[in-house]
Amino acid sequence: MSEKEQIEKRGTEARVGFGVENIRLSEDEKAVVILDQSQLPNETVYLRLEEAEDFYDAIYTLKVRGAPAIGIFAAYAIFVLSRRMLECGNDDYESFLAEFKKNKAYLDSSRPTAVNLSKMLRRMEAVVLAGKNHTIVEIVRALKEEAEKIQQEDIMMCRAIAEYGLTLVKDGDGILTHCNAGPLATSRYGTGLAPFFLGKEHGITLHAWIDETRPLLQGARLTAYELCQSGIDCTLICDNMASLVMREGKINACFVGCDRVAANGDTANKIGTSSIAILAQYYKIPFYVFCPSETVDFSCRTGADIEIEMRPAEEIKTKFFERAVAPAEVRCYNPAFDVTDHELITAIVTEKGICRSPYKKSLHRLLQKTE
Amino acid sequence: MSEKEQIEKRGTEARVGFGVENIRLSEDEKAVVILDQSQLPNETVYLRLEEAEDFYDAIYTLKVRGAPAIGIFAAYAIFVLSRRMLECGNDDYESFLAEFKKNKAYLDSSRPTAVNLSKMLRRMEAVVLAGKNHTIVEIVRALKEEAEKIQQEDIMMCRAIAEYGLTLVKDGDGILTHCNAGPLATSRYGTGLAPFFLGKEHGITLHAWIDETRPLLQGARLTAYELCQSGIDCTLICDNMASLVMREGKINACFVGCDRVAANGDTANKIGTSSIAILAQYYKIPFYVFCPSETVDFSCRTGADIEIEMRPAEEIKTKFFERAVAPAEVRCYNPAFDVTDHELITAIVTEKGICRSPYKKSLHRLLQKTE
Repeated sequence: MSEKEQIEKRGTEARVGFGVENIRLSEDEKAVVILDQSQLPNETVYLRLEEAEDFYDAIYTLKVRGAPAIGIFAAYAIFVLSRRMLECGNDDYESFLAEFKKNKAYLDSSRPTAVNLSKMLRRMEAVVLAGKNHTIVEIVRALKEEAEKIQQEDIMMCRAIAEYGLTLVKDGDGILTHCNAGPLATSRYGTGLAPFFLGKEHGITLHAWIDETRPLLQGARLTAYELCQSGIDCTLICDNMASLVMREGKINACFVGCDRVAANGDTANKIGTSSIAILAQYYKIPFYVFCPSETVDFSCRTGADIEIEMRPAEEIKTKFFERAVAPAEVRCYNPAFDVTDHELITAIVTEKGICRSPYKKSLHRLLQKTE
Repeated sequence: MSEKEQIEKRGTEARVGFGVENIRLSEDEKAVVILDQSQLPNETVYLRLEEAEDFYDAIYTLKVRGAPAIGIFAAYAIFVLSRRMLECGNDDYESFLAEFKKNKAYLDSSRPTAVNLSKMLRRMEAVVLAGKNHTIVEIVRALKEEAEKIQQEDIMMCRAIAEYGLTLVKDGDGILTHCNAGPLATSRYGTGLAPFFLGKEHGITLHAWIDETRPLLQGARLTAYELCQSGIDCTLICDNMASLVMREGKINACFVGCDRVAANGDTANKIGTSSIAILAQYYKIPFYVFCPSETVDFSCRTGADIEIEMRPAEEIKTKFFERAVAPAEVRCYNPAFDVTDHELITAIVTEKGICRSPYKKSLHRLLQKTE
């Protein structure tokens, strides 16, 4: 059966798997309301953010995280900042545009590796540029519509990714995941976790093996939270246990999200992803990358062109811990991402379909596809 | 230059690299005094242990850890318990032997994977068995001498391991380490870390890249502590960063200790070791296992015969952390060790020399060697 036939056979009427709303515009349109992911799984706290500095901080300190979620958040954030300009009486196009660009550059600098942040901010900017001959009121209204569209598109897209992902596994499979590529990282369903949620709706049981994902423990804190909340069968392990569970035959496939895909298929994702891919190759287990097609960045020829964000030593030594777990004086190296070589990737799963090697060709062909 | 020539050229007059005393018999011979490793690096606390339950607990809760250190500790512990029998007026050989065996079996059950624990307890038992025609006073004196001999032999052995290890690297090399195979895990020098300490004495600079080693963070807490204390250049990373630092060309070799070597060279060591070995093979970096020759267990044909200890979920979810880092309800899988396939091991470095593939032959030849 082809992928398309499999998907059609299952039907597309299923409900959304997970009810937590992670990002929304406030009723008065003066703020973005987010679920503070940095406090999960202990506290469910919603934050109302209004200022540019708060938006920057929410991204930088991972209160909102996951490439698609950051893109959606940034779109709403720049709408809120633009709407404020209008409220402050700014109705001159040139000065509105200049201020918009300043806000865009500032938000864009909060995390260098995720491509969605830049892309969604550029989409929002295109609305402003296209509005040159319109009033500022009209431009601001169009910005709101664009942000909502970005979010809606994301939901539909994750759903499509889930459908394609389910064609790669069978009932009862054990799947290793890394970091968090679930609903919290997008708007609903997620990317790498999407097949678990859609699978549950379809009665397909997948068992998740969750890497805790040091240093910030997104696997333990967020993936375990999302899957437990939804009653999806899962087991938490430390990152260095992946080799053993693979050796023991518990893993049928690896599912990860990603932050950026280069034109040749090299993939940047949470630190440790390349390690899983190498282990999977060694144990002959398929390794699948899940992402929206917009994550492919043809301006990066290979993974070497992707900038890797470095983060502070405290995340390794003291964050989360009751007492320091390393001597105060020890130097730390804390890269947030790594690049997985395209040769280690079995397939890249997007909302437009599944790409396989040679990626240079398959990614190009895919991106030209319209839905 | 041969290994032997290299070692002779450097001379053997160097001082011991690290001054912390981790295990000793108390002055009154009624207790074993240990540095509580579970409180490092925040507190330097010495514990005076007298009861069988305290000895068991010290091993089980990793107050004393590292295969050779556990062996030395168990030898002193069973001496202390035997001496007490004498104090209690037990001078009948048969009942002394029965009580000795009971204590031996109890201590032996505290950690299943480390081979030194069993071996050293058997060495102590042999002293008792050989003393059948001697008084209990004489047997107890011989037990003390045997325990001291075990510790002295360990120091000389680590020194010899260090000498062989230094023949495998050059000044300026970056070395990845996992868990703790340093002086704290033995009595002095250590095994996997021994070349760093001896190298420093000889003016050979090695840069250590330290895996933090989840869940119990022996790399962050103990290896970083020992190396910082001794002024050895080092950088701490999370376990899942090893792939990136290898890819970046920072690692010239991997040095790990081990808990048990099977007859075919398969090696059990701290969970995550097999992962490093697979990554090292992928990046074409040599992977060296360091251990006393007594760690080779010919009764294990392959790694499949080595029992892997399972430990509680709390070590992953709550231990060390200010607040829980995973949902209370999530299931955890917490194996303490894994087995590294002999095909992934470049060489096994012991006090008697360096073994290379095929290990079945080279290990046998080595073990027959007398110093």
